[in-house]
Amino acid sequence: MTTSESFSVKNGATREEKDLLGHLNVPADAYYGIQTLRAVNNFHLSGVPLSHHPQLIVSLAMVKKAAADANHQLGELETRRFEAIEHACQRLIDGEHHDQFVVDMIQGGAGTSTNMNANEVIANLGLEYLGHAKGDYQHLHPNNDINMAQSTNDAYPTAIRLGLLLGHDDLLESLSHLCESFSRKGDEFGDILKMGRTQLQDAVPMTLGQEFRAFATTLGEDHRLLAKRVPELLHEVNLGGTAIGTGINTDARYQKLAVERLAAISEHELSPAHDLIEATSDMGDFVMFSGMLKRLAVKLSKVCNDLRLLSSGPRAGFNEINLPARQPGSSIMPGKVNPVIPEAVNQVAFEVIGNDLSLSLAAEGGQLQLNVMEPLIVYKIFDSIRLLTRAMDMLRELCVDGITANEAHCRELVERSIGLVTALNPHIGYEHATRIAQKALATGRGVLELVQEENLLDEDTLAEALRPENMVMPRQVF
Amino acid sequence: MTTSESFSVKNGATREEKDLLGHLNVPADAYYGIQTLRAVNNFHLSGVPLSHHPQLIVSLAMVKKAAADANHQLGELETRRFEAIEHACQRLIDGEHHDQFVVDMIQGGAGTSTNMNANEVIANLGLEYLGHAKGDYQHLHPNNDINMAQSTNDAYPTAIRLGLLLGHDDLLESLSHLCESFSRKGDEFGDILKMGRTQLQDAVPMTLGQEFRAFATTLGEDHRLLAKRVPELLHEVNLGGTAIGTGINTDARYQKLAVERLAAISEHELSPAHDLIEATSDMGDFVMFSGMLKRLAVKLSKVCNDLRLLSSGPRAGFNEINLPARQPGSSIMPGKVNPVIPEAVNQVAFEVIGNDLSLSLAAEGGQLQLNVMEPLIVYKIFDSIRLLTRAMDMLRELCVDGITANEAHCRELVERSIGLVTALNPHIGYEHATRIAQKALATGRGVLELVQEENLLDEDTLAEALRPENMVMPRQVF
Amino acid sequence: MTTSESFSVKNGATREEKDLLGHLNVPADAYYGIQTLRAVNNFHLSGVPLSHHPQLIVSLAMVKKAAADANHQLGELETRRFEAIEHACQRLIDGEHHDQFVVDMIQGGAGTSTNMNANEVIANLGLEYLGHAKGDYQHLHPNNDINMAQSTNDAYPTAIRLGLLLGHDDLLESLSHLCESFSRKGDEFGDILKMGRTQLQDAVPMTLGQEFRAFATTLGEDHRLLAKRVPELLHEVNLGGTAIGTGINTDARYQKLAVERLAAISEHELSPAHDLIEATSDMGDFVMFSGMLKRLAVKLSKVCNDLRLLSSGPRAGFNEINLPARQPGSSIMPGKVNPVIPEAVNQVAFEVIGNDLSLSLAAEGGQLQLNVMEPLIVYKIFDSIRLLTRAMDMLRELCVDGITANEAHCRELVERSIGLVTALNPHIGYEHATRIAQKALATGRGVLELVQEENLLDEDTLAEALRPENMVMPRQVF
Amino acid sequence: MTTSESFSVKNGATREEKDLLGHLNVPADAYYGIQTLRAVNNFHLSGVPLSHHPQLIVSLAMVKKAAADANHQLGELETRRFEAIEHACQRLIDGEHHDQFVVDMIQGGAGTSTNMNANEVIANLGLEYLGHAKGDYQHLHPNNDINMAQSTNDAYPTAIRLGLLLGHDDLLESLSHLCESFSRKGDEFGDILKMGRTQLQDAVPMTLGQEFRAFATTLGEDHRLLAKRVPELLHEVNLGGTAIGTGINTDARYQKLAVERLAAISEHELSPAHDLIEATSDMGDFVMFSGMLKRLAVKLSKVCNDLRLLSSGPRAGFNEINLPARQPGSSIMPGKVNPVIPEAVNQVAFEVIGNDLSLSLAAEGGQLQLNVMEPLIVYKIFDSIRLLTRAMDMLRELCVDGITANEAHCRELVERSIGLVTALNPHIGYEHATRIAQKALATGRGVLELVQEENLLDEDTLAEALRPENMVMPRQVF
Repeated sequence: MTTSESFSVKNGATREEKDLLGHLNVPADAYYGIQTLRAVNNFHLSGVPLSHHPQLIVSLAMVKKAAADANHQLGELETRRFEAIEHACQRLIDGEHHDQFVVDMIQGGAGTSTNMNANEVIANLGLEYLGHAKGDYQHLHPNNDINMAQSTNDAYPTAIRLGLLLGHDDLLESLSHLCESFSRKGDEFGDILKMGRTQLQDAVPMTLGQEFRAFATTLGEDHRLLAKRVPELLHEVNLGGTAIGTGINTDARYQKLAVERLAAISEHELSPAHDLIEATSDMGDFVMFSGMLKRLAVKLSKVCNDLRLLSSGPRAGFNEINLPARQPGSSIMPGKVNPVIPEAVNQVAFEVIGNDLSLSLAAEGGQLQLNVMEPLIVYKIFDSIRLLTRAMDMLRELCVDGITANEAHCRELVERSIGLVTALNPHIGYEHATRIAQKALATGRGVLELVQEENLLDEDTLAEALRPENMVMPRQVF
Repeated sequence: MTTSESFSVKNGATREEKDLLGHLNVPADAYYGIQTLRAVNNFHLSGVPLSHHPQLIVSLAMVKKAAADANHQLGELETRRFEAIEHACQRLIDGEHHDQFVVDMIQGGAGTSTNMNANEVIANLGLEYLGHAKGDYQHLHPNNDINMAQSTNDAYPTAIRLGLLLGHDDLLESLSHLCESFSRKGDEFGDILKMGRTQLQDAVPMTLGQEFRAFATTLGEDHRLLAKRVPELLHEVNLGGTAIGTGINTDARYQKLAVERLAAISEHELSPAHDLIEATSDMGDFVMFSGMLKRLAVKLSKVCNDLRLLSSGPRAGFNEINLPARQPGSSIMPGKVNPVIPEAVNQVAFEVIGNDLSLSLAAEGGQLQLNVMEPLIVYKIFDSIRLLTRAMDMLRELCVDGITANEAHCRELVERSIGLVTALNPHIGYEHATRIAQKALATGRGVLELVQEENLLDEDTLAEALRPENMVMPRQVF
Repeated sequence: MTTSESFSVKNGATREEKDLLGHLNVPADAYYGIQTLRAVNNFHLSGVPLSHHPQLIVSLAMVKKAAADANHQLGELETRRFEAIEHACQRLIDGEHHDQFVVDMIQGGAGTSTNMNANEVIANLGLEYLGHAKGDYQHLHPNNDINMAQSTNDAYPTAIRLGLLLGHDDLLESLSHLCESFSRKGDEFGDILKMGRTQLQDAVPMTLGQEFRAFATTLGEDHRLLAKRVPELLHEVNLGGTAIGTGINTDARYQKLAVERLAAISEHELSPAHDLIEATSDMGDFVMFSGMLKRLAVKLSKVCNDLRLLSSGPRAGFNEINLPARQPGSSIMPGKVNPVIPEAVNQVAFEVIGNDLSLSLAAEGGQLQLNVMEPLIVYKIFDSIRLLTRAMDMLRELCVDGITANEAHCRELVERSIGLVTALNPHIGYEHATRIAQKALATGRGVLELVQEENLLDEDTLAEALRPENMVMPRQVF
Repeated sequence: MTTSESFSVKNGATREEKDLLGHLNVPADAYYGIQTLRAVNNFHLSGVPLSHHPQLIVSLAMVKKAAADANHQLGELETRRFEAIEHACQRLIDGEHHDQFVVDMIQGGAGTSTNMNANEVIANLGLEYLGHAKGDYQHLHPNNDINMAQSTNDAYPTAIRLGLLLGHDDLLESLSHLCESFSRKGDEFGDILKMGRTQLQDAVPMTLGQEFRAFATTLGEDHRLLAKRVPELLHEVNLGGTAIGTGINTDARYQKLAVERLAAISEHELSPAHDLIEATSDMGDFVMFSGMLKRLAVKLSKVCNDLRLLSSGPRAGFNEINLPARQPGSSIMPGKVNPVIPEAVNQVAFEVIGNDLSLSLAAEGGQLQLNVMEPLIVYKIFDSIRLLTRAMDMLRELCVDGITANEAHCRELVERSIGLVTALNPHIGYEHATRIAQKALATGRGVLELVQEENLLDEDTLAEALRPENMVMPRQVF
């Protein structure tokens, strides 16, 4: 069976529809129509249908509703048809019939197939509302009525922006919870003294709480960045630009009206693009958003690398913390438990970095008045948002919340460490300190022991110098 | 609902299973067991289950069958149990029950969950064969019997290599057909004279057939590369290395025997890795294979860019060829048809390039005796193979096979071109040629016309110099 | 000769210096010292020395000056030594002796070698000021006096941030000039009617001015983004955190004082990091900055792709604009001139995208309390800034400023275009429009001609519909 | 000062040269000419001149010499001129005058500037040989004589391939030495028992020798791959294809003759491309070569990550091996020494991965009959070769050769490890083994101690089971 036959020849009742290229049999109960079917037959690629990203379906429906509203107000769409469209869109917004969005996320045509999938589903849902049969488009037409005054080239990018804003809210919530989780652990571990490490070498003491609070801080910065900047990036929509941004064949009042309606329907602040030519082809905002997601991925990966290092062992590793056991680690090694959750987060991070690259290539590949690679951009950025959201939920619930510390071992590592000598620097001088460090390393003995043996410091001063609060923050001046 | 509850709390009959971490209720009719369920609960990430890649399921089953065969021959697995395992594996090889491979392609644990998913499904299929209830593992145990003498760390990489070899065959077939399609067009267009272009500027004449044959040549080189090199890369398997390649707890005869059986079962040449420590953690062969896929993607993208350029227009572009119309191009612009098929191939190429990056990061991220990021590597490389296979089928069937040439327009562009003057170089000299070129550009007139007007060449010589066969290949010496 | 001997064994006078690892002969006239020399001997990699990026040298000197100032005010650095340091730093700030920064941009040690190169050069410049010989460190010591109260781990990241702010100013200026250049061309070409193209297919009319103004708009958005966001990203510095952010061995008043001094010296707004542990290892701001540079690169590449397409030809391409000739295009094809400037910009863009990847990998590779890959991050981000700055200057001066339009040809393409029919849609209806479009395509005739032939519209309406101002913006309502 | 004035306005004596675009003053003593100068003025980008890569200069000279030889044999180049060219080329091959290759590695024009830089330098060196003044091109002309029968589009890619083959030899030598170094350490450490780790968790015992031999094995695989495959990839050259591969204006005998001469001169096996159209634009071989370099970079980075982990500590890390101290590690922490050499290798690896990306983008960006981004491809691939060669030399000389093992600590970690229990599995059974493992973890006691306490095994059996040779390889059958 060839690709092109793969969809249309299934058994079952059909209805015939036609377009400029001819006729095709559409499954009788499908809300989508001939152009959707052509796209399904053409693009058998990722296996991921549009319905995989509900926020995109919802935002497409909102755009169609807003456009219909504007057209109705301008007297170009009769009330009955408007009501049918409004009703149909609302069902999609409410989560119904998303399974009718069957086109592959990877598609040629710069989103035309996605736009037509929406137009056709809304038309047939509207026809149902009006009491007509599916496909009886004289009463409500996918192009003439649903797509009225729009082009894929303005409706589709507008829907993407809105859809991303919806997805963004989920991401922020997940990120916020993860920060809180790290922050709670930071408090819990506030008194646990441990060795800090630079370049994987023992450095100077710190607290485990400081380390976990730093995780909260670094991710918190991304929360602030995303929360502030993403709405700024995405709020400007090109609805009203039609084919190439000249707004050909639209009413001059349409742009403002349609965007106002869309803002009201979506409850997101949106504003009309000021240079519609530029806004039609420009992918810069998606590149920037994805760049922010990549930064988050890089940070999450670094944090998970640290969690895996800190929990390495139990005997031949760092063994400072314990990650909760989530599944048996080995069929051959009894009792082994692995850090499977951070490992999975690392892999999600690598995928998000790869997505950012694919998307950047797609952005670069746009030509002249349109970026024809936009469907891949949409696919990859929605994928990154979903993956990161799920990965952060997983990390928090199944790992961070359950982390415990090996306090005694942490302290023991500090006490045995040569790095302690740094804290004695101001008291015994750099010369003595270096000599003691080298002697400790050569003999395997402890810094404290050697300092005591040589009577370099009296006990009180030594105890004072090594009090945690004097090692883990700048010394106070009296 | 939290992630961790998402799977186990569904309604319906269940059976209780237990592992080191405790008990869990598994759906009564599931062939998978508790460890698979834990993984499903842990990893709710890509949404792409193992079953998405049938070749991976088949190769896992082949590995399990080969290992059981070896263990049976070595006297460690009793005949009845071996028969049950053999039967179960064969059902998977035949394509049955792939829906039981439910773990997410992105997972922590370095593939343990995939391996256990296979062990559990095979155990329960075997129990069915033996007349026992699902989960009654005393008669056939996922670990003790199915996983006998294996570790995830040798069974899983071995299955991946074999699975890739299976997938590779499909890719080669698709690539081969595409080359033939371009080659046929090369023959069909062999006499069509057209302008060659360098740096998007008019250069010198060539035939459209030469251009399409070059597409066949460049992709044919990849066919040869992949056909020769991929089996070389992947034939060496680390089965028998167990946990870290030391082969701890295996019989010294097992490695050779198991690999021989696997080669026989799979009908692919396979050989035992000579350094099992290295083979356990090394991802180099996957990086190399993916690098080859990236090269193919880069070439396909370049070819599709060219197809889009050559078919640009119809009036304000190059308009040398026509791509078959696959779907209406615009709801607002009557009669517009777009090059949707090559556009989709470009996007697939960008995804494959992104996959190569993700996979390379995962390879770099491995540490010490194992690469824990291997599941992402598997996911991305299988994805790239499938995407490229589908994209090449689509490109051939829905585009290349139906391309037609605008012969008259191609010839007209040659005749109007200033680049023609290069062919007159040997006859009128570089000085005259340059002057004529500049005059043509300034006046908008034709090179031929100017040469004739100036009587620089007699008609016969001019006709001879401009005969296609004298312009599109080196001049023959008489 | 082995790598390790490559530097120290040159002929010429030397002075002996020592450090913890032993003695080495430093060239007698070198301002740098033994630790710099060790680094030069160790890292013979990129061939790009620190001196390649003067802004980094200047910012290092500013940090050293500010730290010395704070230490002096806190009574830890005597006045005479402070004056010597201040004098030495000022010479570097004024651009002197940058050739003494000889360490390779790629280096191990997380920047220690860069920091020590600065410490040693400043010490020897200070010794000169104080009337002592080079290397006579008892009077002014690289570690004890210049590096006092600092660690590489706080001084180095602080200098990078400041250095990037300095480099950023140049970038903004270059970008601003490029936007103006495109904007001027937008005005110049405001009345030139041309075909807009989507998916490389003829779409609907627009003006060439709209196209060039869109270039100005899209780059202008990046100017706004960079101008606003980069100072926000980089203003927070971790000076005072010392080794791992705990500020061990610093005076509690030092952080605030040193940062205040640095802000005053550099005339840039700077503030102390609030979580010094996090600030010591976090590379997120560099990842974000580089992400912005990547976005700019992606946009520049797209714009240059467009310029190359629009100037393709002269006869067998689009030929809408002419780029100024910068160099002869071919030794074999008389009169050929190529779009060499945009081609070079494309390549710079690809390098910047590659830099962004290298840098992101380095950011991900950091572990625990420090990112040891920071030198690569510094190298790549400074490189991207410089490359983009130079590429934009080149693009403006040598290309955009000299672009001319082929107005008659642009208009002719519109008049011959089938896309014109879209503008007639509201007048003759979609049915007629589609039929006319197909007839035009099949016969090679013009849309206008066919409309006139069929008397579908009277001459006045036709003329009105096709007035440029009615095609290139939304229709006004009367 | 604007970019375009930056080079030509220097003080000093000049000579005037001219080309199609007009006149320019070239420095009187320069061997390069006007077209080189235009390129220098145009491209002020990377700051890396062609002379940075001597192998490219040498291979350009070899191509020019071979072409001249062929033209001479075909009677198109008179003997005197041929001798002058031959002499000039030989001087470049011998390493003289490379400083005359002043064009930036990043350049527009698809390599025309590089080709013309070679043509001009050879012409002027030849003029010197003939006793004429520089610039007196009537006696020996850069285009007519040096570039005779060539186009940049065939001479340049041919030189690149040859230059890469030259660079490749150095790389292989460096890689070979590194493998030997790891192999020697593998032998040296053959008896040192240590814990293997998977997923950073203690797994089962192995020897340190096995670990280092695996490093030798994995890099040795790359040596074999590169040694075999790179000459296969690069041996086919497109010399003779001229502008677009049609060989326009060449003698039909030229291609074969010129390639034969080039093979003889370079002492590398080279053969003529069979599809010259394809060979002119195809970048696939460079993509593949770079993909191999990326794989090597990924492996080197993984190996260096392992070296850094294994040497982490000295007290709070793994501390199994010691890397030789190369430079003091900290100005604030006495006695600290860092793994600076592997850190630098990691960074080189990240740069090579970034280079591979830039190069792949450039390959994808080629259009129609030529890849105009080829200069970036050349730049990045030569850079990767050089960086990897230097990094591997550095790694071997300054790190691997001097690594020592902490044998007692390694053994102690094995003895304290819970992973030992895996080796007891066949003796005490999985049930007991799991219980012992959990008890050991909970109590902090040793596995051996617990087994002995419970009298689970007699002393002899226990001793036998834990003999290194029985743990680090498959058990022998008796």
